[in-house]
Amino acid sequence: METKIKFITSGSVTSPRGFHAGATCAGIKKGAKDSLDLGILFSEVPCVVTGLFTTNRIKAAPILWCQQQLKSGKATAIVVNSGCANACTGEQGLEDTRETAELVAKDMGISPEDVLAASTGVIGQPLPMTLIKTAIKQIVLSADGGHELAQAIMTTDTFSKEVAVAVRAGKTQFTIGGVAKGAGMIHPNLATMLCFLTTDAVVDNDFLKLALQRAADISFNLVSIDGDTSTNDTVLVMANGLVDNEPILPDSPLADVFQQALDKVCVHLAKCIARDGEGATRLIEVIVNGAPSVAEARLAARTVVSSPLVKTAVHGSDPNWGRILAAVGRSGVEVIESKIDLYIGQTCLLRAGKPLPFDEQNLAQILSGNEVQVSLNLNLGNETAIAWGCDLSEEYVTINSQYTT
Amino acid sequence: METKIKFITSGSVTSPRGFHAGATCAGIKKGAKDSLDLGILFSEVPCVVTGLFTTNRIKAAPILWCQQQLKSGKATAIVVNSGCANACTGEQGLEDTRETAELVAKDMGISPEDVLAASTGVIGQPLPMTLIKTAIKQIVLSADGGHELAQAIMTTDTFSKEVAVAVRAGKTQFTIGGVAKGAGMIHPNLATMLCFLTTDAVVDNDFLKLALQRAADISFNLVSIDGDTSTNDTVLVMANGLVDNEPILPDSPLADVFQQALDKVCVHLAKCIARDGEGATRLIEVIVNGAPSVAEARLAARTVVSSPLVKTAVHGSDPNWGRILAAVGRSGVEVIESKIDLYIGQTCLLRAGKPLPFDEQNLAQILSGNEVQVSLNLNLGNETAIAWGCDLSEEYVTINSQYTT
Repeated sequence: METKIKFITSGSVTSPRGFHAGATCAGIKKGAKDSLDLGILFSEVPCVVTGLFTTNRIKAAPILWCQQQLKSGKATAIVVNSGCANACTGEQGLEDTRETAELVAKDMGISPEDVLAASTGVIGQPLPMTLIKTAIKQIVLSADGGHELAQAIMTTDTFSKEVAVAVRAGKTQFTIGGVAKGAGMIHPNLATMLCFLTTDAVVDNDFLKLALQRAADISFNLVSIDGDTSTNDTVLVMANGLVDNEPILPDSPLADVFQQALDKVCVHLAKCIARDGEGATRLIEVIVNGAPSVAEARLAARTVVSSPLVKTAVHGSDPNWGRILAAVGRSGVEVIESKIDLYIGQTCLLRAGKPLPFDEQNLAQILSGNEVQVSLNLNLGNETAIAWGCDLSEEYVTINSQYTT
Repeated sequence: METKIKFITSGSVTSPRGFHAGATCAGIKKGAKDSLDLGILFSEVPCVVTGLFTTNRIKAAPILWCQQQLKSGKATAIVVNSGCANACTGEQGLEDTRETAELVAKDMGISPEDVLAASTGVIGQPLPMTLIKTAIKQIVLSADGGHELAQAIMTTDTFSKEVAVAVRAGKTQFTIGGVAKGAGMIHPNLATMLCFLTTDAVVDNDFLKLALQRAADISFNLVSIDGDTSTNDTVLVMANGLVDNEPILPDSPLADVFQQALDKVCVHLAKCIARDGEGATRLIEVIVNGAPSVAEARLAARTVVSSPLVKTAVHGSDPNWGRILAAVGRSGVEVIESKIDLYIGQTCLLRAGKPLPFDEQNLAQILSGNEVQVSLNLNLGNETAIAWGCDLSEEYVTINSQYTT
């Protein structure tokens, strides 16, 4: 079967058929009066839904709500706010999430159990329910509303993150869309941020779960901003089945192309998140080749891309490659110094553990680009992984030392 | 037996009897022409010696040298340089360390196997042996030389770190001294930095090993600056036995007081290291009470003190306490949100998981002090740990983005 996956120009989470979204300025974000901070994503028909959530043991109220509702594997809408995380808010927090879902459900003529919820922002403050009650009624849904939703979930993000791909597989055509927010508190081994994915394909729930985990493992779980982990990280995927394909199961003819398309969407969003890390001025891509296992390749790549010393060196365009070796060495992955090859861009700095002479000015130039690629070959096996992160700038500190005040 | 442990005013690594040290400016540190960068610590008589080293799998040449020599459990001198880590330097690096030890041995009239070595500085550059050969002969040892040695091992440290305690136990009197360097790349679960400890007590080698591990576990292994781990971290302790006590064994009458004194020296140096983290403006002390096990108490305390988001909030005196909860939640320690109490200074912010109202200005004031204390009670057991770190400032980024250039 001939297959083709194509990025849609200005694609969004509402690119797949039957998805609508909208947002409003509820006034939840402190000191940002005109900024969108409350949004709804809605499907014309109930969806098969699955999700991934933070591994943090302190989970925000909307996460507990989603985990409860997802037992049915079905949902129709997501309500999301920025400016307040609704985390560490106890019973009241759960009540507030439930009430928000009820308000949306009433407006949309659906059941509250079909409304999922997500929040992002400051921890430990209650949701401003008076503002939310008024604002929810003001939200106007539209098939172009994905862009508004992308704005509404931003906190310290400097640009909105959205994407959609059109997939053609034989006679079947379907679309996958996605929206994400990132910036701070992004780290591997969590759902790592807010991300909503949509598709109009008919997808079996168990396969969707598997496909999402696989896609997250090579995308969101390989992004790191600061090593911290939010209480609110959420990835949700909704499949409304408005395309009339045979349900996609693990052994379906469409399973592979669906996975590839979902991977593309997730990797695209993950790279956007890395590039837009708080205070970031450049994207760092770390490729580890020659690892004995995929797990080790991932661990090594993540450790390098997370190292504050590597991140600051890249920020300063300082060709201090020893820090990359030091990071790999402490990653917990078995390495043999005398086997390691190291490249920055196309420049080989270390072959079989031996430092090679290099042109410092040329390397500083490479390190000043918008994207810096670090490649390591451990020469101990055949497995590979890619992780993404960003440089660590003075701006990161400035942003995060004045977040609530 | 009556015991007393007293800090010695201006104490140093040469406070215990029979230890001499000295340093010179060899010119190894780039762009710091008058700065001491090569030193020797020497005992009049051979010492019982043990050490702890980095857990990084990439180990600098001096570490490999020390590990080899320490098999004998004996040494007489340590040679140390700053400005060059002699890491990722392959066979040449090992040769250079050996040659340095031989030069010192020749000068001191001892065997090269009795000379331990340590280096700190840039990774991936060879030791400048021509400079070292000339400089070693210029080093003048003295019983006050500990202060010079403390200067010589500094890199981005802003103050030298040294301490000594006088111990009286019944009729026995002995001294323990120590010197350390810290600043960047400091993180738990390693030897974490350079630290040399000395004592004139007679100590059994196996007990010394045990005592050092215990002291490191509650001091150096509970300090974090940036989560990175050096290739060169080294803690060495030398006992020259010039005091005529009965050899201290695990069940000796002196074992307890020796351990307490060593703990005090190590905790003092660890706190100096935390306070002097690169770009740090304040010390953060995190106390975790009520943990089910010591291991969990330590892990929780270390995770909070290492969190970039907590560190930046403290830097900005931002009472964003949710980040502390988020850090505990991702630490891997089992926590129950509804049981946690949280204090900053004496102010209770969370009791049994419920946020309490607090005076923002007052808390910002507390967060602006030289020392910020965060206390958590998990209320799940009786174990306790304290970890130390520092705030994360724009200055940290500036220092580390221009380290080699």
